Amino acid sequence: MRMVGILGGMGPAATLDLMARVMAAVPAQDDRDHVPLMVDQNPQVPSRIARLIEGDGEDPAPVLADMARRLQGAGAQALAMACNTAHHYADAVRDAVDIPFLDMVDIAAAHVPHGAEVALLASPAVAQIGLYDAALATRGATIRHPKADAALDLIRHVKARGPDAEAQAAFHRLSAQVGSDVQVIACTEFSLLAPHAAPGVQVDALDALVQEIVAFATAAG
Amino acid sequence: MRMVGILGGMGPAATLDLMARVMAAVPAQDDRDHVPLMVDQNPQVPSRIARLIEGDGEDPAPVLADMARRLQGAGAQALAMACNTAHHYADAVRDAVDIPFLDMVDIAAAHVPHGAEVALLASPAVAQIGLYDAALATRGATIRHPKADAALDLIRHVKARGPDAEAQAAFHRLSAQVGSDVQVIACTEFSLLAPHAAPGVQVDALDALVQEIVAFATAAG
Repeated sequence: MRMVGILGGMGPAATLDLMARVMAAVPAQDDRDHVPLMVDQNPQVPSRIARLIEGDGEDPAPVLADMARRLQGAGAQALAMACNTAHHYADAVRDAVDIPFLDMVDIAAAHVPHGAEVALLASPAVAQIGLYDAALATRGATIRHPKADAALDLIRHVKARGPDAEAQAAFHRLSAQVGSDVQVIACTEFSLLAPHAAPGVQVDALDALVQEIVAFATAAG
Repeated sequence: MRMVGILGGMGPAATLDLMARVMAAVPAQDDRDHVPLMVDQNPQVPSRIARLIEGDGEDPAPVLADMARRLQGAGAQALAMACNTAHHYADAVRDAVDIPFLDMVDIAAAHVPHGAEVALLASPAVAQIGLYDAALATRGATIRHPKADAALDLIRHVKARGPDAEAQAAFHRLSAQVGSDVQVIACTEFSLLAPHAAPGVQVDALDALVQEIVAFATAAG
């Protein structure tokens, strides 16, 4: 199998969630059936929200580029990043290495039905920088966003206190208020709450990425 | 904070458990409060049980030494291993690098009260190679082992199907049958089942290791 490097720690619970989903996606009878990962659990990556929304934070790009180089040096044959917002810096990651980058934004967008009205359940930073705009435009999709304050409060709650009952209820409200044909869960903190979304068609960007990680690792390389 | 490298994937669920315990051990208000880890989730390390009990497996030592070197190269400032049995090869890991190795066996033994009668809830491989003998002898402890077949069946069950209700009941029986003043949980698959041990004094080797990882990472280095 081929080893996939994970730029993680953004946040650390989301990285554990990704690893658990990779395990669950593999039918295994023993350890050796599982997918090898090299995981940089780096919770000290400068805050994407501070940089992009508040405009006063350190630039995450050089840190992410350095993580990418170290993962390649440690033997990773492709890279993935367990944070949607951090994909704003995807080019810095791609430019730092010469192995494929499994881009969660492109991968998730490819699961959206053509012409759908999409609710993008994401951080306000993702909305502000239009992270999914180009990828969803190629699907002829229109985009709606949840209320910025409610989304940001919920992300901070999950980072500090985990996906507890209060967070589950808040996520259900957020999801129900924004409506739409298709809901794209495009924040790995929200992926932790995915079972509590309002009923309807959902694309969980993290699940879409997990499928690609398993496919890459298990393909004859 | 200082980054700790984890030789993981033995098994992969035990590595996730270690990472979750490291997170839970840190009082955190935001991502940056958490401990940085570089995790080699390598489920393809040759089976320790096949090598040590069945005597016909590939030698894990060179693979573990290579993992240790790659983790150091990726920036780890100390190493730890999320598998008790693999500590049979601890010297190969130590010899491969020039950073400290946080040795779960020594660390767990230091938590055992002097002169205790100890039930070592571990894989039969750990009993057969006497992995804890020297460290527990320095505590004046005597050692009892659970039934080898029952322990091995339970480890294989957890690796294939997770710490499910059947595994929980089997672990309770194993723990109750062996008795003793102090029970040392010295198999990371059993650590997944720790809340289901029979009542009594317990030392969970994985928890002891987690404390050392957090202490190393957060100490002024």
